[in-house]
Amino acid sequence: MRKYDKRDFPVDNVRRYLEPGPIVLVSSAWRGKTNIMTIGWHMVMGFEPSLSGCYIWDQNHSFDMVRKSRECVINVPTVDLAAKVVGIGKSSGRDIDKFTEFGLTPVPGTRVGAPLIEECYASFECKLDDAKLIPTYSLFVFEVVKAHVAASPKYPRTLHYRGDGVFMLSGANTTKFRKLFKPQNL
Amino acid sequence: MRKYDKRDFPVDNVRRYLEPGPIVLVSSAWRGKTNIMTIGWHMVMGFEPSLSGCYIWDQNHSFDMVRKSRECVINVPTVDLAAKVVGIGKSSGRDIDKFTEFGLTPVPGTRVGAPLIEECYASFECKLDDAKLIPTYSLFVFEVVKAHVAASPKYPRTLHYRGDGVFMLSGANTTKFRKLFKPQNL
Repeated sequence: MRKYDKRDFPVDNVRRYLEPGPIVLVSSAWRGKTNIMTIGWHMVMGFEPSLSGCYIWDQNHSFDMVRKSRECVINVPTVDLAAKVVGIGKSSGRDIDKFTEFGLTPVPGTRVGAPLIEECYASFECKLDDAKLIPTYSLFVFEVVKAHVAASPKYPRTLHYRGDGVFMLSGANTTKFRKLFKPQNL
Repeated sequence: MRKYDKRDFPVDNVRRYLEPGPIVLVSSAWRGKTNIMTIGWHMVMGFEPSLSGCYIWDQNHSFDMVRKSRECVINVPTVDLAAKVVGIGKSSGRDIDKFTEFGLTPVPGTRVGAPLIEECYASFECKLDDAKLIPTYSLFVFEVVKAHVAASPKYPRTLHYRGDGVFMLSGANTTKFRKLFKPQNL
């Protein structure tokens, strides 16, 4: 299993990896335990501060861990991790230690207590910026406070979920339309 | 330019097309005028009701049109519309009629006043469900009240934006991992 050598990346640019809509793995830590969950419902909500909105169902074990610790790491897995992404999604941290069970490597964060996942292409350390939308929408608004992205490949091959067990895999990346943009709209 | 023959589709299943994270075209109508905008910041927020969160910047002409009419249509364009998607994103409805300018065909909605875009693969008629998050986050929470999806192809080839003028194009779709899911997690 590949371990990505990640470098510091500007937090205001994490849209490069989140805006295309990949499935992500959210890792958390609370009172000496760690956990990982799979989510597909998330969106970019701002550049400065760098905001990400994530829907975390209140029945998930991660819900309270993230809510109480007010931190998490959003990790972007690549296609080679697909079976683990599904396994993480269908199991509960109440029953198992997911890092051990799925053979993933926790790496200490620099700004948060939640661990990064070494086998993921990108890892974004997040602090809970706003808890007010959790009761109504299970929506956690995070600020990305530190970003780590692999130097290679240039673009990761990511998993995008359609429901019903169908994944869309990311395809080609193109700058063919770049000349059509206004510079301020890039 | 292809016009998609769309059929009724269950509103609680629009994740099939929105959760993978494509760029979408949001069409609106207000006081006899229509408009279209390009957005990449959106997420699924619920099944029943079928909720979608969309970030609409308050400097966009569409912002007031959607806020005042409390309606819109979220349209999913395919790769063949890439140049129009960019053109729509860099122009303003203050200056031009985008349906005319970009040669797109407005089709009346059945539940909302905003028009569907005939050349898009899928069109989701939406009513504003919650306006409370607009002042703080420019976040419009919509309920999808009627969905129209093309019968073919099975999966659309969509555009996913990375910023900096780079589009990721959707790749293969696979059910290879379907057997790993628990039925209740599909």
